[in-house]
Amino acid sequence: MTYILHEYAPSGNCYKIRLTAARLGVPLERRAYDIMAGETRTPAFLATVNANGRIPVLQDGDRFLPESNAACFYLADGSALVPADRFARADMLRWMFWEQYNHEPNIATLRFWLAFVGADNLTDAQKSQLMAKQVAGMAALKLMDDQLAHAPFLVGDTMTLADIALYAYTHVAEEGGAFSLAPYPNVLAWLARVAAQPGHVAITD
Amino acid sequence: MTYILHEYAPSGNCYKIRLTAARLGVPLERRAYDIMAGETRTPAFLATVNANGRIPVLQDGDRFLPESNAACFYLADGSALVPADRFARADMLRWMFWEQYNHEPNIATLRFWLAFVGADNLTDAQKSQLMAKQVAGMAALKLMDDQLAHAPFLVGDTMTLADIALYAYTHVAEEGGAFSLAPYPNVLAWLARVAAQPGHVAITD
Repeated sequence: MTYILHEYAPSGNCYKIRLTAARLGVPLERRAYDIMAGETRTPAFLATVNANGRIPVLQDGDRFLPESNAACFYLADGSALVPADRFARADMLRWMFWEQYNHEPNIATLRFWLAFVGADNLTDAQKSQLMAKQVAGMAALKLMDDQLAHAPFLVGDTMTLADIALYAYTHVAEEGGAFSLAPYPNVLAWLARVAAQPGHVAITD
Repeated sequence: MTYILHEYAPSGNCYKIRLTAARLGVPLERRAYDIMAGETRTPAFLATVNANGRIPVLQDGDRFLPESNAACFYLADGSALVPADRFARADMLRWMFWEQYNHEPNIATLRFWLAFVGADNLTDAQKSQLMAKQVAGMAALKLMDDQLAHAPFLVGDTMTLADIALYAYTHVAEEGGAFSLAPYPNVLAWLARVAAQPGHVAITD
């Protein structure tokens, strides 16, 4: 039974799952939705794939798993991408929860608003949040840069799902123009380190 | 070695960890910080406990673990609160990631702003987000209510960390007045079910 990934290809959240699967050598069947056209809010999608109206969703037979980081965990559970040590495993999840709370809502959201929706098409409510999200996104990049001064990967000497989860939107953070990665040299070195790992695939693959 | 919980007691994120520990019979030493007085942004806190300036942080010896849901996972890893089945385990994490992305930023934030900071003390940027957060919080409660129509707990027949993570801020969602739980009868029944479990402790304990 091949896994099916319900996705919008340029989404970093969807790319995380493709990168995890590629690293593990697990084949994925990809099913594309145009989120700009509302294809993840149709009654059929909400009833069958995800009541939350969002992609990615990983399908395994007749079971559907939303939330990108949970889908990555499902694919990688038991592999070397999830540390066998209990503290390291929790520390990996710590970075993945942090990604969804402190990184994605700022860095991914500004990329989406500025590079996909377009600055001229933003609502007033969105425009009023631009500066706060830029400040919070820069703080997130600084926190990563400080962490990566101490170790080659976020949880230590080997790559884990934490690196995949944070690579996805960090390596395209400059799209849209809200962020420059130049002030974060440890992040830049880490991006190159992740991309050099065997089995790596690009977001455009 | 006793775990140390660095916390602000009324925070639902801190309560999650206390509730997990109580359910497991694990003792916690509690260390309180006044977040209103900026005690988690001091140089000493940032250098030692959490560079992200947030509580809760779970300390185990000289190791510090931020992010509430990661700390719960660390305590409960290998226990009955984390399903042994691979899909169920990932589905539990799915609800925990969803909690941090779709539930906490709306339901916990409005409780904090309205019941702790006070409506008169909010910034203009905060005031401009009130309605969007109320709408998103109601959608989160509706999604939980629909899920809990099918099963007694979020991941099926037995309580997991997903229930603890979502109980924490749902059961105090009405504080501050932004939300009423009356329209969500399955959520109300589930709240009573969680509170009736052996080893339960209240947020005020």
